[in-house]
Amino acid sequence: MRYKLTISYDGAYFYGFQRQKDLISVQEEIEKALSIIMKEPITINGSGRTDSGVHAIGQVIDFKTNQNVPPKNLIKIMNKRLYPHIYVKDACIVDDRFHSRIYATKKEYHYKVSLNTFDPLQSNYIYFFHDRINISNIRKAMSLLIGEHDFRSFAKTKEEDNTIRTIESFDLDINDGVLTFKIIGNGFMRNMVRIIVAVMLRVGEGKLTVDDVKKILDAKSRDAAPWVAPSQGLYLYKVHYE
Amino acid sequence: MRYKLTISYDGAYFYGFQRQKDLISVQEEIEKALSIIMKEPITINGSGRTDSGVHAIGQVIDFKTNQNVPPKNLIKIMNKRLYPHIYVKDACIVDDRFHSRIYATKKEYHYKVSLNTFDPLQSNYIYFFHDRINISNIRKAMSLLIGEHDFRSFAKTKEEDNTIRTIESFDLDINDGVLTFKIIGNGFMRNMVRIIVAVMLRVGEGKLTVDDVKKILDAKSRDAAPWVAPSQGLYLYKVHYE
Repeated sequence: MRYKLTISYDGAYFYGFQRQKDLISVQEEIEKALSIIMKEPITINGSGRTDSGVHAIGQVIDFKTNQNVPPKNLIKIMNKRLYPHIYVKDACIVDDRFHSRIYATKKEYHYKVSLNTFDPLQSNYIYFFHDRINISNIRKAMSLLIGEHDFRSFAKTKEEDNTIRTIESFDLDINDGVLTFKIIGNGFMRNMVRIIVAVMLRVGEGKLTVDDVKKILDAKSRDAAPWVAPSQGLYLYKVHYE
Repeated sequence: MRYKLTISYDGAYFYGFQRQKDLISVQEEIEKALSIIMKEPITINGSGRTDSGVHAIGQVIDFKTNQNVPPKNLIKIMNKRLYPHIYVKDACIVDDRFHSRIYATKKEYHYKVSLNTFDPLQSNYIYFFHDRINISNIRKAMSLLIGEHDFRSFAKTKEEDNTIRTIESFDLDINDGVLTFKIIGNGFMRNMVRIIVAVMLRVGEGKLTVDDVKKILDAKSRDAAPWVAPSQGLYLYKVHYE
């Protein structure tokens, strides 16, 4: 029996999704809970890692077990164990060949930036950015990244990695002084969304021109954009499957 | 020189406002910062204590120092040291006789209850209450508490304490499945707002009638209402002075 779960978590409480020695991770918490519930050691696959501090609204994971638990019951039992920083929103039984990462066709990330006065109650959930920004220039720069490009300048990669990705859409909502960048693509490399947002904010504050963003893209080098927006503003919003 | 500061803090990171041995408190963090900034030991007064997990949007504190720092500079220096869980919103120099607690004339507390699906990213900031509730009955019960009453049933007190208080207003806002109780009074005893909210929610879910609330008030005994709503929903919103 293979289960697919959609989960949400508060990244402020974990050193990232992936299991790490001596550091609390989302993967470890879920595997611990599942291994108790299923009475056998369970290993999960995730659609991808999220870094320390990064949140998930709709992360997808899967695992195999010899047990047969109705999905509704599984949600209840898991949520009792995982409360309050991880929450299972949905569960279903899937074909045994399913794999959360390999079968994912698209991912959507959101990044939140506040232009308002700092609020200590939101410090883990939004990036407070005090400077005045030019939204129109940000939108122009955003449009340059839509489509298939070599995003080598926008990711931590190795020489041999394939760094071509397609950004299907890249939108910006503005509500009460809060910017929400919404980006959908066929795959994102390590730090890619946070580097893109950092570049967009530099355009917004006038430290980069729209043309500079074109140059950064063309440079195909991480040194062209050595900035990373902080983790607390980033949310893995949704993972799409066929 | 006596300073009055308005501060906000995330109660999830502190074992309450008041200094405690071996437990991190808002008071200790602020006194540590101020003692370094002022190069002399500083003790602060607060308008009142908030319990572990309770947030503040507008707590007021004051302290005396031999130094003379312009309030704007003080805000900047303190916010650098206190980042990110405490934030100084305002500072001014006041008459040396001022005392945050003694001079407070009114306090406003908010309590947030969500009727929506649990969200792990909000677990420290709102009380998730899943049952269906009858808002109209809650409003009727709320109106019984407005005015001057003996609130002995709604507080942790000692026999000899004066438990008469005046609730000036008690309102309920509802937005997107989130209830915000807003209560203003001349003073609140230990746990008083959380006990009142717990009673209102029991009325909402039909476990108590509006008439039961009248009886609880008349009983003048803590045993009449042995419930306390959890700390994470409570915010000290504003402290009023003449």
